[in-house]
Amino acid sequence: MRGLVFDGKLRLEGNYPDPQLPPGEALVRVRLAGICNTDLEIARGYLQFRGVLGHEFVGEVVAAPEPGWIGRRVVGEINASCRSCVRCGAGEATHCLERTVLGIQGRDGAFAEFLRLPVANLHRLPDSITDEEAIFVEPLAAAFEIVDRVLVRPTDRVLVLGDGKLGQLVARVLAPTGARLTVLGRHDSKLALLREVGIDARRASHGGDELADVVVDCTGSAAGFLDALRLTRPRGTLVLKSTVADAAPLNLAPVVINELSVVGSRCGPFEPAIQALAERRINVRPLLTAVFPLDEAGAAFAKAAEPGVLKVALQP
Amino acid sequence: MRGLVFDGKLRLEGNYPDPQLPPGEALVRVRLAGICNTDLEIARGYLQFRGVLGHEFVGEVVAAPEPGWIGRRVVGEINASCRSCVRCGAGEATHCLERTVLGIQGRDGAFAEFLRLPVANLHRLPDSITDEEAIFVEPLAAAFEIVDRVLVRPTDRVLVLGDGKLGQLVARVLAPTGARLTVLGRHDSKLALLREVGIDARRASHGGDELADVVVDCTGSAAGFLDALRLTRPRGTLVLKSTVADAAPLNLAPVVINELSVVGSRCGPFEPAIQALAERRINVRPLLTAVFPLDEAGAAFAKAAEPGVLKVALQP
Repeated sequence: MRGLVFDGKLRLEGNYPDPQLPPGEALVRVRLAGICNTDLEIARGYLQFRGVLGHEFVGEVVAAPEPGWIGRRVVGEINASCRSCVRCGAGEATHCLERTVLGIQGRDGAFAEFLRLPVANLHRLPDSITDEEAIFVEPLAAAFEIVDRVLVRPTDRVLVLGDGKLGQLVARVLAPTGARLTVLGRHDSKLALLREVGIDARRASHGGDELADVVVDCTGSAAGFLDALRLTRPRGTLVLKSTVADAAPLNLAPVVINELSVVGSRCGPFEPAIQALAERRINVRPLLTAVFPLDEAGAAFAKAAEPGVLKVALQP
Repeated sequence: MRGLVFDGKLRLEGNYPDPQLPPGEALVRVRLAGICNTDLEIARGYLQFRGVLGHEFVGEVVAAPEPGWIGRRVVGEINASCRSCVRCGAGEATHCLERTVLGIQGRDGAFAEFLRLPVANLHRLPDSITDEEAIFVEPLAAAFEIVDRVLVRPTDRVLVLGDGKLGQLVARVLAPTGARLTVLGRHDSKLALLREVGIDARRASHGGDELADVVVDCTGSAAGFLDALRLTRPRGTLVLKSTVADAAPLNLAPVVINELSVVGSRCGPFEPAIQALAERRINVRPLLTAVFPLDEAGAAFAKAAEPGVLKVALQP
């Protein structure tokens, strides 16, 4: 099959081996897949992943242990767990000690004609969700993880730092909490998208002097984390959503002096994300900037890295 | 009066001005005061404090707005708050925006013949608590802050990193939770003190490979924080107790990938600390290494900085 492989550099393979199905896994023909910042970072050598990239996808099941799955349009959770280690036993399969992660760790991903995942990872999609919307289920689930881990009160002042792909989704998930929400960003066009759905969004240089009960750092930069430290009120909560590839000099004294809680948050629950899209409570369509054929993956990656661009998708 | 002043360097002043009492404050004759690592760090120029050092003390009230306080033996909370800012209004007086902090920020401290504090900060001591024990109330309160902010379950695996003054107190506070507790340290004599009270204590190089639900970093070093990151289980809690003066290169990716909660913790509640000492539930006496007269403060600070030494106290 064709697949976009990273093996030190990014290249499109025309004859990559088709996935071989172990017991319990399904073969999925990829219909559309989104490029995430994690993909861009892997392509720069972060995480030492080797294989087919991509973990945000919608596809159609073409082979599965249970025939009921065949032909279903699905999205899939990206952590494939062993179901027997201490973490899986504790109900935290996304932290399985033996996990592989689609397109990120030990498992080929979605920028290819086919992928494989355990059937247990698959979620059927209602017809009302288009392919273009469905590729947002995975990152939207990651945004829902915040309200799954942190109590956001309607009386809270909440800041989201970053107006990129993740910040856009996080803001849309947090808005219905009723909290007084502001997004601080750097791109007028992205801030405008937030204002269109009634979310207060400002240039990071203006405002943000009022300390917040909850600050969500979606900047993906060490400087953003320092801003988040500065903007979280004493005993407030700083949610760290994005990894920063490089170690930066960092003094954590403010965490102690201001008694902050810094909560790391990664993958989230798919069902609330699917429901929010199906019920049209969250509209992700304006966040899709461009769709490229898989054969033009290089151009797609370049586009995805441009300032002002939001989601770029690949069609195998 | 005599006072140990830091103004770029540490020196004993023979004619430092006596404290002048504003409304609502009491004058306290210091009976005994403990040297904290924060004092050692201030003496190295950390926090830019200028004035009399010291914040762990027991003393006797010699002047107060209400005569009932005169002659009372007291300890005192170190944050003096304005009682009118948004933080005070939220019941978080230790995070008062206008606060001064005894011997740390904008307020002369306890390494002197006299100090002043708001009457509201004072706590009377039962006779059963000796002066040598009473100087531990403030750091012991800081240890109790952990169980005030983090739910430590009896089924939890808990690691305390560091066998110094703070680690010793934290371990003694956490032991009664019933959690499976281990202290990892570097000093055989300090580890032995923990073992004497039935706490599992080991050289940091041995053990500690099992991930813990709760890790309390009392090392005061950037390396200690990295150990704590490594030893906290996915979705576990890392309690950061000690500030590190220097910014160290730090990659917070493990916080996100493992979805950790990093909880900063500083000052704590005095009442549980006083109660624990009064009821002999916690014995701090073995943690007092030496008492020096205030006039030998230089030698006392040198002693306090020696490896293997725990609490050093100054007697004005």
